[in-house]
Amino acid sequence: MNEQLENLNRLPLRDDLRGLTPYGAPQLDVPILLNVNENTHGLPEHVRRAIMAEIESVVGGLNRYPDREFTRLRQSLATYLGHGLTADNIWAGNGSNEVLQQILQAFGGPGRTVMSFPPTYSMYPLLASGTGTTYVTGTRAADFSLSADSAAEQIRAQAPNLVFLCTPNNPTGTGMELDVIEAAYEAGEASNAVVVVDEAYAEFSHADNPSALQLLPGRERLIVSRTMSKAFALAGARIGYFAAAPQVSDALRLVRLPYHLSAITQATAVAALTHADSLLSNVEDIKSQRDRIVAELTGLGLKPAPSDSNFVLFGGLENPRAVWEGLLEAGVLVRDVGIDGHLRVTAGTEAETTAFLDRLRELLTA
Amino acid sequence: MNEQLENLNRLPLRDDLRGLTPYGAPQLDVPILLNVNENTHGLPEHVRRAIMAEIESVVGGLNRYPDREFTRLRQSLATYLGHGLTADNIWAGNGSNEVLQQILQAFGGPGRTVMSFPPTYSMYPLLASGTGTTYVTGTRAADFSLSADSAAEQIRAQAPNLVFLCTPNNPTGTGMELDVIEAAYEAGEASNAVVVVDEAYAEFSHADNPSALQLLPGRERLIVSRTMSKAFALAGARIGYFAAAPQVSDALRLVRLPYHLSAITQATAVAALTHADSLLSNVEDIKSQRDRIVAELTGLGLKPAPSDSNFVLFGGLENPRAVWEGLLEAGVLVRDVGIDGHLRVTAGTEAETTAFLDRLRELLTA
Repeated sequence: MNEQLENLNRLPLRDDLRGLTPYGAPQLDVPILLNVNENTHGLPEHVRRAIMAEIESVVGGLNRYPDREFTRLRQSLATYLGHGLTADNIWAGNGSNEVLQQILQAFGGPGRTVMSFPPTYSMYPLLASGTGTTYVTGTRAADFSLSADSAAEQIRAQAPNLVFLCTPNNPTGTGMELDVIEAAYEAGEASNAVVVVDEAYAEFSHADNPSALQLLPGRERLIVSRTMSKAFALAGARIGYFAAAPQVSDALRLVRLPYHLSAITQATAVAALTHADSLLSNVEDIKSQRDRIVAELTGLGLKPAPSDSNFVLFGGLENPRAVWEGLLEAGVLVRDVGIDGHLRVTAGTEAETTAFLDRLRELLTA
Repeated sequence: MNEQLENLNRLPLRDDLRGLTPYGAPQLDVPILLNVNENTHGLPEHVRRAIMAEIESVVGGLNRYPDREFTRLRQSLATYLGHGLTADNIWAGNGSNEVLQQILQAFGGPGRTVMSFPPTYSMYPLLASGTGTTYVTGTRAADFSLSADSAAEQIRAQAPNLVFLCTPNNPTGTGMELDVIEAAYEAGEASNAVVVVDEAYAEFSHADNPSALQLLPGRERLIVSRTMSKAFALAGARIGYFAAAPQVSDALRLVRLPYHLSAITQATAVAALTHADSLLSNVEDIKSQRDRIVAELTGLGLKPAPSDSNFVLFGGLENPRAVWEGLLEAGVLVRDVGIDGHLRVTAGTEAETTAFLDRLRELLTA
């Protein structure tokens, strides 16, 4: 055992944390970063200027606590989402991880369970552990899909207190039909389960895959979470949010830390939301690169999962570690998400996507 | 029961949250806000400009996740604190509440206890509850002081897993001698207790009251937490931090949400820290207003607690509610912290302090 770990283990850590290592993709200095599903198109100059102007308008008041209710931000998010939502339906946090953590603090905790369907977002079990919630899992079909019948049956069998459904799903990229969510919600009725639909990548969905936002009316245990990290190219600004019945926000007010959203975070988000149109036009380009990746990988004899997100999980690799390293040597960082024979790549700009595909072709035909 | 509460209670809230109301001082629109211990001097113009310049340098990269290790910020904070500290000793979060929550997630939780000495910071029991940690309390002397012998005896008796010592203490303003902290740390040895010294208001201490930072060497269960909300006039930017042995930060890496500090938050803090000198010169003025409040309230026959912070708790009020309301009518908002016969007032600018004192004198002599 090294000295750092010895020092750590001498501390009175919570028992369930002993021996764990921190979460996190490596933050490497590589020219083409396609490993953490960032929006590599970046912010257009006029959006940057709008953000700076909005921050300028709050910097003079930074000595004061921010609006605890982040009212303007909730209004802006409601307007962006549409579907007849108002500020009362909206909640936000420092990234969707914080929002999910708050949901678990309000509805999970010791003696309660949260259910998800791996492979899915790797933070779910960590968020469960961090809030003392028991993490239970269901299964997907071999192609990573989840049918309405299967979801409902598994949820009835496990009777969880919460269900996390990630769609489009990370790390597989696959979308979920609305009937699966409806069936999951109904199956959760028996255990009064809160159903969270994590739509972090929703804006990248194909047009025929609608958002679960339209299922909100009449379903007060349904929460649809989103993030500004992906489509809005604001991973560095840490803004996640959700839409749900107003009482869900009231529940979160009981567990959130007061003033959890800084005045600058609120200003940044509001400014970016006024430019949703131009940010979403970059999204269209990313979607076309994503579809190009799926098509070209198929042509290379690989097995990309159908993707509604800004990344592609692809299987059929004999030696994914060698491919990962070969790509890194060429300055392209992708992600090994721990699924046998698979790697995951973010859809970047056209040039980045080309660099990835060219190098991959070289590696596979060498 | 009103409809909003009915809607909330229909949700599967965690049992211990039922019936609670959200934390929070009223956010009223009043000319002179002396209720939440903000730094009413605000940020000097050159500091605002420095913050904007630093944010400008990161806005172009907001599409990327921020530095998960907030390395520059930790270095800047270590330099500011001195005492031979390095970046390895430093941790930061979105306000000191988040930092304290992370400490409880790492070292507290179900089956563990955190002990504090009321009246003290009202968030402690809420942070305990939010992390499933049992909150236990000790007692102070009638003048709100806590002696080394009393602290040690009470800690030995309760054998808590964590001890929170707030000094200067909120809401009383009173400082704590270093021998109390030494005694508390030693008494906590038997239960391997993590001792957190919450120095949110440390920069406002009288010169003869040293920081617990000097006690860190050789005490690996000691954590000294600080905030940039008060002396640095950045309540709106949400930056709390602590200094401790490096392994304490390693422990927090196991529970923090990845990328919890936005790139803009990091930039804001770094910029403000380069101007620590000018921000601390405002602190000197606030301290003189604070001392003036204590002197003048004493002259009015009231009983202000001795204060090492930027606020004064004062007793001897026959009807604190009427005084609170009378001040509010004159546009001065102070805080009723729920201690019989007492109110708490933040030391503002000279003009704000004068307005408060003039109105109070009117009310008491009416």
